[in-house]
Amino acid sequence: MTTQYQRAKAGEISPEMHRTAQREHLPAETVREEIAAGRLVIPANRKHLAGVSDGAARLDPCAIGRAVTTKINANIGASPVRSCMEEELLKLRWAVQYGADAVMDLSTGGDLDATREHLLAGATVPIGTVPIYSMIVEKPIEDLTREDILATLRKQAEQGVDFFTIHAGILRKHIPLAMKRRLGICSRGGSLLAKWMTHHRAENPMYEMFDEISALMREYDVAYSLGDGLRPGCLADASDAAQFGELETLGELVQRARDAGVQVMVEGPGHVPYDQIEMNMKRQEELCDGAPFYVLGPVVTDVFPGYDHITSAIGATAAAFHGASFLCYVTPTEHLALPRPEDVRTGCVAYKIAAHAADVARGLPGARDWDDQMASARAKFDWEKQFQLAFDGQAAREIHQRDRDATSDAPGDYCSMCGRDWCAVRISKQLAEESN
Amino acid sequence: MTTQYQRAKAGEISPEMHRTAQREHLPAETVREEIAAGRLVIPANRKHLAGVSDGAARLDPCAIGRAVTTKINANIGASPVRSCMEEELLKLRWAVQYGADAVMDLSTGGDLDATREHLLAGATVPIGTVPIYSMIVEKPIEDLTREDILATLRKQAEQGVDFFTIHAGILRKHIPLAMKRRLGICSRGGSLLAKWMTHHRAENPMYEMFDEISALMREYDVAYSLGDGLRPGCLADASDAAQFGELETLGELVQRARDAGVQVMVEGPGHVPYDQIEMNMKRQEELCDGAPFYVLGPVVTDVFPGYDHITSAIGATAAAFHGASFLCYVTPTEHLALPRPEDVRTGCVAYKIAAHAADVARGLPGARDWDDQMASARAKFDWEKQFQLAFDGQAAREIHQRDRDATSDAPGDYCSMCGRDWCAVRISKQLAEESN
Repeated sequence: MTTQYQRAKAGEISPEMHRTAQREHLPAETVREEIAAGRLVIPANRKHLAGVSDGAARLDPCAIGRAVTTKINANIGASPVRSCMEEELLKLRWAVQYGADAVMDLSTGGDLDATREHLLAGATVPIGTVPIYSMIVEKPIEDLTREDILATLRKQAEQGVDFFTIHAGILRKHIPLAMKRRLGICSRGGSLLAKWMTHHRAENPMYEMFDEISALMREYDVAYSLGDGLRPGCLADASDAAQFGELETLGELVQRARDAGVQVMVEGPGHVPYDQIEMNMKRQEELCDGAPFYVLGPVVTDVFPGYDHITSAIGATAAAFHGASFLCYVTPTEHLALPRPEDVRTGCVAYKIAAHAADVARGLPGARDWDDQMASARAKFDWEKQFQLAFDGQAAREIHQRDRDATSDAPGDYCSMCGRDWCAVRISKQLAEESN
Repeated sequence: MTTQYQRAKAGEISPEMHRTAQREHLPAETVREEIAAGRLVIPANRKHLAGVSDGAARLDPCAIGRAVTTKINANIGASPVRSCMEEELLKLRWAVQYGADAVMDLSTGGDLDATREHLLAGATVPIGTVPIYSMIVEKPIEDLTREDILATLRKQAEQGVDFFTIHAGILRKHIPLAMKRRLGICSRGGSLLAKWMTHHRAENPMYEMFDEISALMREYDVAYSLGDGLRPGCLADASDAAQFGELETLGELVQRARDAGVQVMVEGPGHVPYDQIEMNMKRQEELCDGAPFYVLGPVVTDVFPGYDHITSAIGATAAAFHGASFLCYVTPTEHLALPRPEDVRTGCVAYKIAAHAADVARGLPGARDWDDQMASARAKFDWEKQFQLAFDGQAAREIHQRDRDATSDAPGDYCSMCGRDWCAVRISKQLAEESN
């Protein structure tokens, strides 16, 4: 037996279950039970666990599901317009430094195989890909064959990719529904497969070949991330017949993946008005039988390009509170340009906020301890401790210091917002001391 | 009769009701009804409406309440550590440019009277203050007298201030509750009054003098913003006995303000875990009989100093969805330093996101039209239209252009995220054209 799911079902606690249980402060048996129930996934290709090459980083397994802390993913990757191997490696480093639990290489430009190889060799976090991108480099999607699909999947599985986005849920019958939309199909994988289906007047090959694909993924324990090729690309298209039609198919595929012994997550929107997020999470949970939900944002308004890390962190918090387990970040460049390393940092921080705020809100044991420590450091005017506790202590220190350089006061005693005498916390502290 | 509330109760539709009805695309009678019910406030000092001096800007009235769009406030003002009149005027300009519906001058440093005068002369938006700050410049809070209070309030009302934060709800009996907290009292006004009460062993003078204060504010139609001197300063202190004890008093004061004919809003937290926000909004609505709720964030986690515009925009969206009408922004410098003009911009944009996302979510008529126009511009690859529609078109254009300068391609055709051939929207558009 190869996959974590198969082992969990058989009652076995794998080393990866032990390790993730340790990271999450949970009993290993709980992790095993959750995996066996399909509610928890550990994306861990056995090649990546072993180290993809001599001297390469080995995967430190990470668990994704409602029983554990909410995880975030950073999308990186070159595009045909902008590609540079060193920059992608820098993005990987920054992503991990700023809290990404997983990284997807979505490259569509540069040397795709080499980029993926380098990223896997450097990554202790799980790496995901959307293999269809590699299947159609330098050829039109219409020429995609069964052999291309299996060859690319095997190549990437051999390289050590931990989870694959496979858009097997978009079917021919859904395409007319999407054509009625304001913004059609905004998923690259979804649009490519829609084009293939329309051209060949045939069903989605990822759907037709699903069991073959599952068998291949099982060999390496690559986890499914079932792609939502029909995720809404604007508020107006949210929660429509196309989106929910595909979600029904995804629910069917969750069962088929499990039957094949393969771990499975499900991808979700996208662009969703704030009031529809709870309903979306509940519907996914029901249709997909508790498989971990992996959402992209969602952004809650369309009119703030340049700030979609914020529009989407709002949606992501609501999503994680109401049911999502895995949040794919959105950066300030979304809808505008390929993210650069500084955008990766910004996106990751925004999503760590969403993930942690949701973990506190859903009452995950111990989640608020970190906040309570910060509150105590604030009460004591212990600025060094505040910077240590801050998620991005460097940014906090820079802001705090910028007005302080001009003064000769001792550090650690106040900030420029109120100055020393006007500080409420200081006055309150004096009162508390007097009242004792 | 002077105040909008008195006139609305008497069945009169004032010019300010007409103007705000026009701005909100509502019947003027609806605005009047909402004001008469105490659910809508138009902070509009008659001095500011007339222009506070020759050549000064006149107030363009703005309505705050659940029947209209969610409004945002930007706090500006100098501190003892950092003060510069020109910088405060620049902050005012940027605040208004980036969407602030109201601005509060919270100066505690520099020439307070002169700063306020200049800001009022330049502001078409309502200006609020926390008058206690001016009452104790160069003297200890313990020396505050009845005469100081009335003189300062009259001075600022004469200057044209449109709404006053008055911390009349924090009572002696609440102080021991606050002393049990992890972070005590984090409101400047609240901590100062607690100190006064403790020193004099007497009740809060703002509470004791409430009817006198109301009479003075009525003369000019200055609106109350009843301060929450006991708002929680960290997640651990949220929704505690101190906060809710004060909220009960605020509910009593809402009725007393209305009985005196004065418009009234109520201030709220602060720091609140995401799951407690809905409950907080409902409790305020009930205890304060539908008076507009004016919240500061709330931030939903304490451990991201440097990013509290994001931690709090998440809370603000939830607050505005569940009941708040007026969102006081938080900038990236919160807990660290006084905001600078660029922080004012960042804070305003984050809060316009929260306000608009909530307006879409609560189904305010027409709120989503803007988003739908953006989606259509995206579907057409009309980049110029996208930049026009974007809330911060300059930021969006800069990001979009940064990878384009290196290429010789015609503008307006794609972005560097996917490049031309990999664009899902382009593929989807071709499919739609072929299917017609």
